[in-house]
Amino acid sequence: MVENVVDIVLVEDNPADVELTLRALEKSHIANKIEVLMDGQQALDYFFARGAYAGRNPTKQPKVILLDLKLPKISGLEVLKELKANPKTHPIPVVVLTSSREESDVIESYKLGVNSYLVKPVDFDQFIESVHNLGLYWLLLNQAPDLDI
Amino acid sequence: MVENVVDIVLVEDNPADVELTLRALEKSHIANKIEVLMDGQQALDYFFARGAYAGRNPTKQPKVILLDLKLPKISGLEVLKELKANPKTHPIPVVVLTSSREESDVIESYKLGVNSYLVKPVDFDQFIESVHNLGLYWLLLNQAPDLDI
Repeated sequence: MVENVVDIVLVEDNPADVELTLRALEKSHIANKIEVLMDGQQALDYFFARGAYAGRNPTKQPKVILLDLKLPKISGLEVLKELKANPKTHPIPVVVLTSSREESDVIESYKLGVNSYLVKPVDFDQFIESVHNLGLYWLLLNQAPDLDI
Repeated sequence: MVENVVDIVLVEDNPADVELTLRALEKSHIANKIEVLMDGQQALDYFFARGAYAGRNPTKQPKVILLDLKLPKISGLEVLKELKANPKTHPIPVVVLTSSREESDVIESYKLGVNSYLVKPVDFDQFIESVHNLGLYWLLLNQAPDLDI
């Protein structure tokens, strides 16, 4: 059985931001498969292959995770902390994509080991452009780790 | 006294690669100040403000470090390890920029906490284009941590 490889996991609860992000990524024509997860609990279950995702192969991880900070159930910072604290998920590139410009969120994210931190532009066209460039960078330029070895 | 703020530190011993990288970054018109360091010892002295760099203010760090792996004196992986093991330098974004495609280098870099890993394209035009996009991403899109707080 050929398993569908997910390129990008987007963890975002705001439907408008999900739609915009997907539209920008589609524009790039680089991501064949994007998985959208709507809260922090679902995200952790997905990456650690438990709960509703117990059947997933946890060595198949995306090339990049786009993580919002304000999430229901479990916050984005807590998700980041758990991902980066576990040797199995630690190497997966995580980009925080948030509306928060607060320096405390920025510095805390870096302390927890985030790979990159992007503030969502308020302007529609700039948002599309930023996510487009973000997708190109992490899917085409960056060399993601192969966890399946 | 106004201190010159360095945007990018390039740690690279190959003069041809230094020249190419600088040329690509100049093309971007985004980096006002780039510091080039030629070996791993010099890099650690710079970031930890010791030795020849004892007069530097270590809370003024670049927005991104571009780090080659094959360096004289102290290897790039060792530099990465020391930077990411120290809470003061841990938040600085580090991008490995190397000719090595070896999966062991990739996975070890991620384990040590690298923010991103780029393989230098062999083709001249592609090299220029990659470094150009790399510069745009880390200087304009990414929100770097402010360590001066």
